[in-house]
Amino acid sequence: MFVAAFSLLALLGAQQADPSVAGLTPGEVVDAAPAAAWRPVDPDHLLLVDLADARRVAIELNRGFAPVHVANIQAMARAGYWTGGASVYRVQDNYVVQWGHRDDQPALPAGVTATPPAEYVRPVEGLAVRGFGLRDSYATAVGFVDSWPVALYADGSASLTHCYGTVGVGRNMSPDTGTGEELYAVIGHAPRHLDRNIAIVGRVIDGMAHFSALPRGSEVLGMYPKGEVAAPIASVRLASMLPPDARPAYEVLRSDSETFARYVAVRANRDDAFYDVSAGGVDVCNVQVPVRPAVARPDLKAGDGSPGGRGA
Amino acid sequence: MFVAAFSLLALLGAQQADPSVAGLTPGEVVDAAPAAAWRPVDPDHLLLVDLADARRVAIELNRGFAPVHVANIQAMARAGYWTGGASVYRVQDNYVVQWGHRDDQPALPAGVTATPPAEYVRPVEGLAVRGFGLRDSYATAVGFVDSWPVALYADGSASLTHCYGTVGVGRNMSPDTGTGEELYAVIGHAPRHLDRNIAIVGRVIDGMAHFSALPRGSEVLGMYPKGEVAAPIASVRLASMLPPDARPAYEVLRSDSETFARYVAVRANRDDAFYDVSAGGVDVCNVQVPVRPAVARPDLKAGDGSPGGRGA
Repeated sequence: MFVAAFSLLALLGAQQADPSVAGLTPGEVVDAAPAAAWRPVDPDHLLLVDLADARRVAIELNRGFAPVHVANIQAMARAGYWTGGASVYRVQDNYVVQWGHRDDQPALPAGVTATPPAEYVRPVEGLAVRGFGLRDSYATAVGFVDSWPVALYADGSASLTHCYGTVGVGRNMSPDTGTGEELYAVIGHAPRHLDRNIAIVGRVIDGMAHFSALPRGSEVLGMYPKGEVAAPIASVRLASMLPPDARPAYEVLRSDSETFARYVAVRANRDDAFYDVSAGGVDVCNVQVPVRPAVARPDLKAGDGSPGGRGA
Repeated sequence: MFVAAFSLLALLGAQQADPSVAGLTPGEVVDAAPAAAWRPVDPDHLLLVDLADARRVAIELNRGFAPVHVANIQAMARAGYWTGGASVYRVQDNYVVQWGHRDDQPALPAGVTATPPAEYVRPVEGLAVRGFGLRDSYATAVGFVDSWPVALYADGSASLTHCYGTVGVGRNMSPDTGTGEELYAVIGHAPRHLDRNIAIVGRVIDGMAHFSALPRGSEVLGMYPKGEVAAPIASVRLASMLPPDARPAYEVLRSDSETFARYVAVRANRDDAFYDVSAGGVDVCNVQVPVRPAVARPDLKAGDGSPGGRGA
């Protein structure tokens, strides 16, 4: 049974075309968002993975679904747990990259919970779910909470979803839930079968290609041979550990904004010049929550392409 | 209205757990397939993209959905159209790689239809669709035809689907349908909004990482700067153009086999030791049709991993 906190019917309605976005691209809809439609990424929830070659991957940590795991990650970052000796050591095509201390893990810093609870789901009750009539192949319904994609189940539970760029906590066989010392990011088609089976803690919001374009590992599960790594890691820090003027800053489009509703509608009903037929629906992982730098950076402007032909 | 050739109800039934696969992994189910569950890939429908550094991407061409475009590609391959001067020149993260002659395209060889029809959909009628109760975010129903994922629509039409590894024909604005001289492959989450808007002609069946791990292009849409390429292409040939003993050979798991039904069931209901909760469903693009070399090649054995923790 679903709890009264949200209406299943409201979440399962058909995705209607929105006449106000007719002919627009998703990028055009997002570009027209008012300033109030954006929320900042908290510097205590912005994890910066700096590779040894100075490339940076920025990850937003989630607040509501796996608080013990996220607190562990924050504590390890503050203690410099991954500064020195950590690496990306697994790159499995169409699946995940994984990083941490593969061998010779340091002792866990003070403040880290060694055996966190299984923070794979939480009650729907109390969540402000914004649904958009999206159909789903896995869950009873899907929607967004604070700009995070979520799946809702018939038992009244909710989980974050494994989409491209989602960051989760590597673990061994159940009941091990992982500590957060080994993390992975999805680099392929959404492996949604992992939902409810593993702690999701964040998502990559910048520098994704520094993970996704890494050479695939040659061993089973995309592991690199012992002694080899895909990319050494120089440091993993929270943005809040940097001096204020050295911190990167990002904003996320609020899923409770009118712009977000228009954005979902246009992603479900592409009808700009390239398209002959609008889909009339969109996978929750293809909504691709818009993120922008808080300070203008032209290199991060959202591309919005289609495969083009000769001369395109 | 759906035509009588298939039963919508049969396609929309719930995905039931199959007790006979309880506890097995997808790889274990596939490994138990009898020889008759596999069909060979026809050498005239096996496109070999050889990169200049000797790495090879193998693509199976589809027979039933875009025959004029596929005949064009076969004619261009036989004429050596892409041998000399072609390259991968676009790599857009979480979207596509694209290749061909970016500039200075040679004249189209004899036998190529310069303006093919819009082979984006075909009638469902006459198709032997195998459905497995899969739910979908885009189409009325989804299933498989001759081991190809297909989407079915309320107007009685069917299309192939854009999944990871799907190969399509780059085109300009409608009504241009593209000739096949510029092709793309999906390297991210399935861009299903392209279904019914572009000609799908094939799928990568080997060497996918030679595309997906290429460095992303720095310009809009992942384009490489003029004069730079992601990967030069040495040749593009059909396997049938090679001497018989030099041809690679592959087999695809038949979607009308009993093993395939068991494989879908286990992908929708993972319950091997890693999993606490089975999804009870699977996205058609996450079914990942099994392919194997016709001659044993241990490096192609299907991996089947989950993000593991310390020591995993």
